[in-house]
Amino acid sequence: MKKKVIALKLKRIFKNHNLSNNHSKICADYLLKAELINAQSHGLVRLKMYCDRLKKGLISSKPKIKVKKISSSISHINADNSIGFVAADLGIKIAIQNAKKTGIGLVAIKKSGHYGLSSFYAEQAVKKNLLVFCFTNAPPALAPHGTKKALFGTNPICFGAPTGKAPFIFDSSASMINRGKIRRAEKLGLKIPYGVALNKKGKITTNAKEALLGTQLPIAGFKGSGLAWMVDILSGVLTGSSHGGKTKDPFDDFSGPQNVGHLFITINPKVFSGNSFLKEIKKNIKLVKKLPKAKGFSSIMYPGERKNKIYKKNINKDIFVSSKILKEINELDVVK
Amino acid sequence: MKKKVIALKLKRIFKNHNLSNNHSKICADYLLKAELINAQSHGLVRLKMYCDRLKKGLISSKPKIKVKKISSSISHINADNSIGFVAADLGIKIAIQNAKKTGIGLVAIKKSGHYGLSSFYAEQAVKKNLLVFCFTNAPPALAPHGTKKALFGTNPICFGAPTGKAPFIFDSSASMINRGKIRRAEKLGLKIPYGVALNKKGKITTNAKEALLGTQLPIAGFKGSGLAWMVDILSGVLTGSSHGGKTKDPFDDFSGPQNVGHLFITINPKVFSGNSFLKEIKKNIKLVKKLPKAKGFSSIMYPGERKNKIYKKNINKDIFVSSKILKEINELDVVK
Repeated sequence: MKKKVIALKLKRIFKNHNLSNNHSKICADYLLKAELINAQSHGLVRLKMYCDRLKKGLISSKPKIKVKKISSSISHINADNSIGFVAADLGIKIAIQNAKKTGIGLVAIKKSGHYGLSSFYAEQAVKKNLLVFCFTNAPPALAPHGTKKALFGTNPICFGAPTGKAPFIFDSSASMINRGKIRRAEKLGLKIPYGVALNKKGKITTNAKEALLGTQLPIAGFKGSGLAWMVDILSGVLTGSSHGGKTKDPFDDFSGPQNVGHLFITINPKVFSGNSFLKEIKKNIKLVKKLPKAKGFSSIMYPGERKNKIYKKNINKDIFVSSKILKEINELDVVK
Repeated sequence: MKKKVIALKLKRIFKNHNLSNNHSKICADYLLKAELINAQSHGLVRLKMYCDRLKKGLISSKPKIKVKKISSSISHINADNSIGFVAADLGIKIAIQNAKKTGIGLVAIKKSGHYGLSSFYAEQAVKKNLLVFCFTNAPPALAPHGTKKALFGTNPICFGAPTGKAPFIFDSSASMINRGKIRRAEKLGLKIPYGVALNKKGKITTNAKEALLGTQLPIAGFKGSGLAWMVDILSGVLTGSSHGGKTKDPFDDFSGPQNVGHLFITINPKVFSGNSFLKEIKKNIKLVKKLPKAKGFSSIMYPGERKNKIYKKNINKDIFVSSKILKEINELDVVK
């Protein structure tokens, strides 16, 4: 399907759900972006969910977003239950401004929702030659170490840095795989990999539905659990959002707004190293790339490099949309 | 052995290596602290290494540490090859001051050395009611994902937050176990766990010596490798220190100073949530602690809680020093 056609449809759908022209464009762009980097788990498959929540008023279509400027480095945003894309898009732009002005930016966002991929926002800061952390919490998916009930979200940690070429973007959930992949597998009737989730009884399952009702496994046991807890503190407790398993699942829980929190930290490397940061990171990447390769590897890539290649390849191609999802889109795309 | 006796011996040893009275006390305190939290891998076992490097002038006993104040939030320290403890102790104190003043502190340290455990410094910020990140790089130990040669250090990521009780401190290397544990196993003739390191030929080994010559395994494959790379950028490239596998091994490489880098980020939660941060994090911890426990767990602990308990138990007891290490200490403790 032509990208232009999908973009138009998406924008129209959001506008029909009462979002402003500008907010509709932001949402359409991010959903499309997910498809373009083959992160289908965060793309069109989620459109209906966003619309369902908009219809029920759980996402505010006309949010009164308040930005509280604490200092020239620090801002606190109350997103008033806006769709996550819109709140985070504003937040990262302020975090970029702040770091450009003072060397460091810190932006906390409360009362937001699922914002897609952290890398969407990290990339924007990196393109302005900043280092960046993006943290967000998510609905219960992981059992804290030593327990048998899901409480933490898959809570990604995302870090970006400029390289002079494709952005270095490390974006990793604290779980073996991200929840969106399991959601998509459920929707499309696919199996999930072995060893990434347990069913309700605590046994390993490859059935997506069972996994969603059970718990996902953290990376490296207590280490992954600790990372997820850290992200819950940073994006939930610190920002004044939901935390401790209270973040609502956007797909299943219509009892209220999600109240997701995000935290962005931006650093201008120029304050420490003038213009030599780029020179040094290029050297760094070169050193890693020329190491002897392990079996099965034809080239060594840094985090974010492969996604960037995929994006460049996809940008000039049509997008594959499964018949199931196309049906959803067309049902939503009713001209008022 | 009485703590007081060891402390006295350590201080005397550092003074005999030309460190000032104050710097000797700082070093003795941190080495002892490692023993008190049962992190023997970062304690007395390292004394001889520090002394060897001091004797050869690879650690400067009288460093001319320069602090460059970039703004009221940001400082850049040139540690002039001081012992890591001294540089990091100064750095974290400045990072604390900065966050107390402006809400956020960012301190980069270059030309430093191995500084013990990140948690030593995180704890100080947490005790002042701040959130904190501590990053440091380390000599080659991990093979980047897709390669078969060690280049990244075990590069810990450390995060701390106040809880009203024992500090929440997540301090985790990007490797399955920290390198100090392998060093100590080698020194004391112990085996290392299965599945944490490969020998030179790429086979799993439980022999510590073989592991040190081979590569350590990262947590969760490409995720651990990405985390280690992130820490190398933050503490190496950004601070203006060694990176890309150029950090010298303090035990084996006497060809020059280590040139380790550290990065501290401190955040005052009050800027976002007034005094409610503590109330909320207490709620958060309570929610996790009351989850149903998995088999084999009698209680759920947050990161840092167990170490804190160990410290409190050990603080009133003598310290066990193996005969091998006692011999080293006594050989170094010669009154000039």
